[in-house]
Amino acid sequence: MENFRLDPWGHIYIEEYEKLFKYFGLSPTKDLLKRIESIGGKSRLYSRGIVFAHRDLDKFLDVIERGGKAALVTGFMPSGPFHFGHKMVADQIIYFQKMGARAFIAMADAEAYAVRRIPRKKILENAKIYVANLIALGVRPERATFYMQTNYEPAYYRLMQMASSKVTISELKAIYGDVEPGKIIAVFTQVADILHPMLDEFGRYEAVVVPVGPDQDPHIRLTRDIAERLRSDVPGLSKPASTYHKLMRGLDGGEKMSSSRPESYISLNEPIETAISKLMNAYTGGRATAEEQRRLGGIPEKCMVYELYLYHLADDDMLREIYEKCKGGKILCGEDKKIAAKLLREFLEEHQRKFNEIYKVVEDYISLPRY
Amino acid sequence: MENFRLDPWGHIYIEEYEKLFKYFGLSPTKDLLKRIESIGGKSRLYSRGIVFAHRDLDKFLDVIERGGKAALVTGFMPSGPFHFGHKMVADQIIYFQKMGARAFIAMADAEAYAVRRIPRKKILENAKIYVANLIALGVRPERATFYMQTNYEPAYYRLMQMASSKVTISELKAIYGDVEPGKIIAVFTQVADILHPMLDEFGRYEAVVVPVGPDQDPHIRLTRDIAERLRSDVPGLSKPASTYHKLMRGLDGGEKMSSSRPESYISLNEPIETAISKLMNAYTGGRATAEEQRRLGGIPEKCMVYELYLYHLADDDMLREIYEKCKGGKILCGEDKKIAAKLLREFLEEHQRKFNEIYKVVEDYISLPRY
Repeated sequence: MENFRLDPWGHIYIEEYEKLFKYFGLSPTKDLLKRIESIGGKSRLYSRGIVFAHRDLDKFLDVIERGGKAALVTGFMPSGPFHFGHKMVADQIIYFQKMGARAFIAMADAEAYAVRRIPRKKILENAKIYVANLIALGVRPERATFYMQTNYEPAYYRLMQMASSKVTISELKAIYGDVEPGKIIAVFTQVADILHPMLDEFGRYEAVVVPVGPDQDPHIRLTRDIAERLRSDVPGLSKPASTYHKLMRGLDGGEKMSSSRPESYISLNEPIETAISKLMNAYTGGRATAEEQRRLGGIPEKCMVYELYLYHLADDDMLREIYEKCKGGKILCGEDKKIAAKLLREFLEEHQRKFNEIYKVVEDYISLPRY
Repeated sequence: MENFRLDPWGHIYIEEYEKLFKYFGLSPTKDLLKRIESIGGKSRLYSRGIVFAHRDLDKFLDVIERGGKAALVTGFMPSGPFHFGHKMVADQIIYFQKMGARAFIAMADAEAYAVRRIPRKKILENAKIYVANLIALGVRPERATFYMQTNYEPAYYRLMQMASSKVTISELKAIYGDVEPGKIIAVFTQVADILHPMLDEFGRYEAVVVPVGPDQDPHIRLTRDIAERLRSDVPGLSKPASTYHKLMRGLDGGEKMSSSRPESYISLNEPIETAISKLMNAYTGGRATAEEQRRLGGIPEKCMVYELYLYHLADDDMLREIYEKCKGGKILCGEDKKIAAKLLREFLEEHQRKFNEIYKVVEDYISLPRY
């Protein structure tokens, strides 16, 4: 387990997801695939293993199946452009809504300010952009509660305050390394994000699921422990379920998309020509020469364009066709990128049209503080 | 400065208040006495040096004098009986209200739970008792905002979250020693307690004063620094003023009244006979024998009964008379205690009658959470 400390605030790409099953007791979603699809319908998220692991998702599905109140919780740090990595989370929100869950969607603005040091003005502007993107992608606002961490209900803050007494500073250090006060407040704010739908004040949801990247699992485990330790004092609390998705790598071949490297991501709001130009420059699984590629075939597993197809752009038939052509050396990267570019353009044109409409009225969906 | 770390959560009786002037830049209130009395009228708090030091009280008085909006902030930890130590704070609230200030009065229930580990039910019950006592003592509810730290407005919590980014863990350790998460949250909650009346959402008070014991000064200095560091992001913030009162010692001669030693305090809500019996057993400045006392005189400076007169029970004429008689050996402790007992009985009878009336409707004055 050495060198395997997961840091939710770091940017570590975890290649060996299998360790999660072994060390942390996660279960593979593939064992639940039929059950998931029978409730929510077919989804690339599960059939392609994008969401590959879970903890207690079966219990969450029990509640859904007997018509109980179920919620999903997620949060977005409104600190940079909304990109395809965020879209993957949006797809999960939409899927859980389809299953019947209500979505509680935090704009992690307290954390963006206190930990990431983003100016408040920028954060508030980003929050509007994020919410408008989510709705434009298909998140149904009537089944969602969008909120700012700095502008919510007293019971949410009470939970944060009470949770703080149930953890020692040593536990925090073991998970997060050195902890500054801003980070400590952010930790308990996130605990409240995850647990608050269970409170009477927010509808007393019986089951809560949190879709996260595996780097967030230590936080999930802490939150589950806190729920257990607080339950005698706070009516309604139980341990949340969680699901784990693969993290999209950077278009430039970097481990993860990052706002600090604009060439690593495509924002859903950037000019379409810029987006396409990033795609055309993306890191692929191509060989050194065209001759070699025709002879040996490409390596889609290494290819960022393929990742875009896999996570976002291609349906199953198309995905299979591209994969086979690439492997068989029947298509070269240049041609392939043109196909992806066409799909990307169509997607962005449609999305940006919807986004612009929703952005005009986005403050109907989220209550922003003045500063 | 060795051995002079003040700990706001500890129970240190500071005999050498003078160090505060020298090391921490406090000013004596006696230099402002005439100005204070010209605004608020005569008060034993100032004329007897009970409130003996301040920081920026002159600036606070400037705002009062030109008719600006001024607020006082204080908090009570609803973790034990409401005693005469609390009454001294109530007297200060009443005096600042008389000067024209609005009072913001926190029930520090988040801290009582997270740091002191008091059961929530007990805390909520105590909060009602505290508020009813304050009003019965003369705090005017129409000029006060009573609130629970766990049940307040979003802007208050936003301030707490934002403040957390302006302090390092090293700064916290230097002030509070080892800090557990519950204490860290409590620190920033208290920062929000002090600064929030300056926000637009709470009336944008121009000047805020915080009456504290000298053991709280490190927290005041931290809060002043945070106000400075946050002011570019939070409209309205400025450094709060503060006043410093002497801490009543325990009736039993202990350094401070403490809920853990019932004989050290008289609760304003306890049976009058119990209260009087505590008074009769109080530590005095009497001599070993009656003969010696008649010859040498008593030592009122050491006497807890005298402290009760000084802080609470006696007007100036009576105080002088008792003092002189005691010094001159003209009165022995037994007789003196009977005089004090009579005053105490009158006070408690009247207070408890008022308290009982107000307690019936106390939830009109404070909004309690359900848990």
